[in-house]
Amino acid sequence: MNATKPFEAAPLDGFWAIVPAGGAGTRLWPLSRRARPKFLLDLVGTGRSLLQATVDRLAPLAGGGVLVVTGEVHAPAVRDQLPEIDPARVLAEPSPRDSMPAICWAAAVIERIDPDAVVGSFAADHVIEGSQEYAGCVAEAVAVARTGKLVTIGIQPTSPATGFGYIHAGRPLTVDGAPSALSVVEFVEKPDEATATAYLASGEFLWNAGMFVVKAAVLLDLLASYDPDAAASLRAIAAEPARLDELWSAVTKTAIDLAVAEPAAADGQVATIPANFTWDDIGDFDSLASLLPDVAGIPGLRVLGEASQVIATDATGVVATSGGRVVVVVGLADVAVIDTPDAVLVMPRGRAQDVKAVVDAVKAMGRSDLT
Amino acid sequence: MNATKPFEAAPLDGFWAIVPAGGAGTRLWPLSRRARPKFLLDLVGTGRSLLQATVDRLAPLAGGGVLVVTGEVHAPAVRDQLPEIDPARVLAEPSPRDSMPAICWAAAVIERIDPDAVVGSFAADHVIEGSQEYAGCVAEAVAVARTGKLVTIGIQPTSPATGFGYIHAGRPLTVDGAPSALSVVEFVEKPDEATATAYLASGEFLWNAGMFVVKAAVLLDLLASYDPDAAASLRAIAAEPARLDELWSAVTKTAIDLAVAEPAAADGQVATIPANFTWDDIGDFDSLASLLPDVAGIPGLRVLGEASQVIATDATGVVATSGGRVVVVVGLADVAVIDTPDAVLVMPRGRAQDVKAVVDAVKAMGRSDLT
Repeated sequence: MNATKPFEAAPLDGFWAIVPAGGAGTRLWPLSRRARPKFLLDLVGTGRSLLQATVDRLAPLAGGGVLVVTGEVHAPAVRDQLPEIDPARVLAEPSPRDSMPAICWAAAVIERIDPDAVVGSFAADHVIEGSQEYAGCVAEAVAVARTGKLVTIGIQPTSPATGFGYIHAGRPLTVDGAPSALSVVEFVEKPDEATATAYLASGEFLWNAGMFVVKAAVLLDLLASYDPDAAASLRAIAAEPARLDELWSAVTKTAIDLAVAEPAAADGQVATIPANFTWDDIGDFDSLASLLPDVAGIPGLRVLGEASQVIATDATGVVATSGGRVVVVVGLADVAVIDTPDAVLVMPRGRAQDVKAVVDAVKAMGRSDLT
Repeated sequence: MNATKPFEAAPLDGFWAIVPAGGAGTRLWPLSRRARPKFLLDLVGTGRSLLQATVDRLAPLAGGGVLVVTGEVHAPAVRDQLPEIDPARVLAEPSPRDSMPAICWAAAVIERIDPDAVVGSFAADHVIEGSQEYAGCVAEAVAVARTGKLVTIGIQPTSPATGFGYIHAGRPLTVDGAPSALSVVEFVEKPDEATATAYLASGEFLWNAGMFVVKAAVLLDLLASYDPDAAASLRAIAAEPARLDELWSAVTKTAIDLAVAEPAAADGQVATIPANFTWDDIGDFDSLASLLPDVAGIPGLRVLGEASQVIATDATGVVATSGGRVVVVVGLADVAVIDTPDAVLVMPRGRAQDVKAVVDAVKAMGRSDLT
């Protein structure tokens, strides 16, 4: 991945960014841990964590500001990583209740400050290349959101992936400042491979990367129409923060896709902007490897960490090294060697999906302290 | 490898054991280091280092006693590992001068205590299974050595190995107490594969494992005939230990095979006892793997260290774990994963010979501290 080009974005008036920072990134164990989840890690060797890179990308666009929502246990680390953000704008969830409560709580907080605000929610643990294109998509999404739609930025599929949900795009919309906007027919769940292949061939489907742009009031009103109690509770928490502990645990635990986006699409309220930037959710080590640069002199080997600590002979794949240990790989193609101070993982890149089972095995051996 | 059967050996009158403890075991890096060479390591998971196991095997046979010869830098560790041996019987070489000076110095020390002594020299870093058979071979070798011969215990080849020198055995000898004894035609250097295959097929060749049994006086007299200065210096050091530093550095730096065994064979002075015990020099990780037991429940995986720290899925090969880290291997066949506190090595078992080059690469990256 090349370094992001310098790009001076113009702030979008009345646009606020929401960054839900959750999810452990289990398939990146042993790099990721419950106490040090994926979004807190610098996984592409830029010197910035995924969370920091997300905020770096959004802050210049967010005329209103940036709010981060994270678990109580991670709030101190998030505040440490983001000294430029007012600590009060790092909302700490008393317990994890999935993405709907997180995003809608932040939207409710913003709605009280700026009733006309447009909010954009972007996961803290994705990698995006192309700041200018990204800014352009967000600007288009904001323009459409101002018309009252819920807008999702959809990713152009590059393979028949079965690990993502898809957005079925429809006809072009006519919105000033949003030439790419399309209507959304429906959101569809993770498909099987045959279905994914058909989606890819049709050209009508985009990956759902969970990027939603919508007026705060519209989002909460949509929620109010599908789950009135949740909307009322979250607006009440925004009005009286002291009631957080009292009200939070009764808010429906659900994803924003299920709670709002899917029913809103069925009601014809959703639009999409097809992304023209490069996106990756770094779902596993195979994905991570493809985002790292080749090491000079060792074609095909990617290193996360100190490349000078790695010795490779006839080896390709990805090596992650932390803690100053030397890692030597000889005679293995497409291997992943993930070295951390208390655990080391060795496997073919192609087995990256097995890491979740590995974490279960680590728990089963009584070493939850490592997970 | 099964645990050695309990076996009560009878001490052999006038027999002294010499254990040269040298050699780094470079191909076992990162387990072996200059400061922690192979012979100080427990490489087969018995709880005893290779040095300790060698002494455990010899002490019951050595009516005279056991002398260890090692480098000055390793003498403290050797004495620590062998509290049962009088520290004065751990001879510390001021500088490494290969095996001839080491063994002949010890022989000269023994000659002064017991002019009729038979000495047997056995490397500190080999693995032997079959105490009873071993004791029988040594007893036969001692019987032949009493007739004035230089006797080598030769290993029955099990493959056309190109990493060992060979002993070309000749006709049977008639010596009381040594029914297996054969004359030695010559020692031959490490052969190429075609030659090794021919040796194996002929049935006339044994591996030279550097096990020599000979009267101390005969050894030194043979040396005196080939290298009079060396013999005189080593006998002088034995007589006046204070002259060690003065005389040592001038003693010819050479292997005992070259200095004594080969010319003595040419002079018809060498016999051999073919070994009927299992022997391995643990030359590399491939060899190490074959000496470790399978891990319960993970067929084909061998573990040196804590097997409970290892998680393997669809993996075979060898894992060495030290320092309490968890090692996870997924989807790799015949792999070697060698984990140490400051370096980790990952390679196919079949690339075990490449480790020497790895150590050179580690030095080249300026990390001689790791070698």
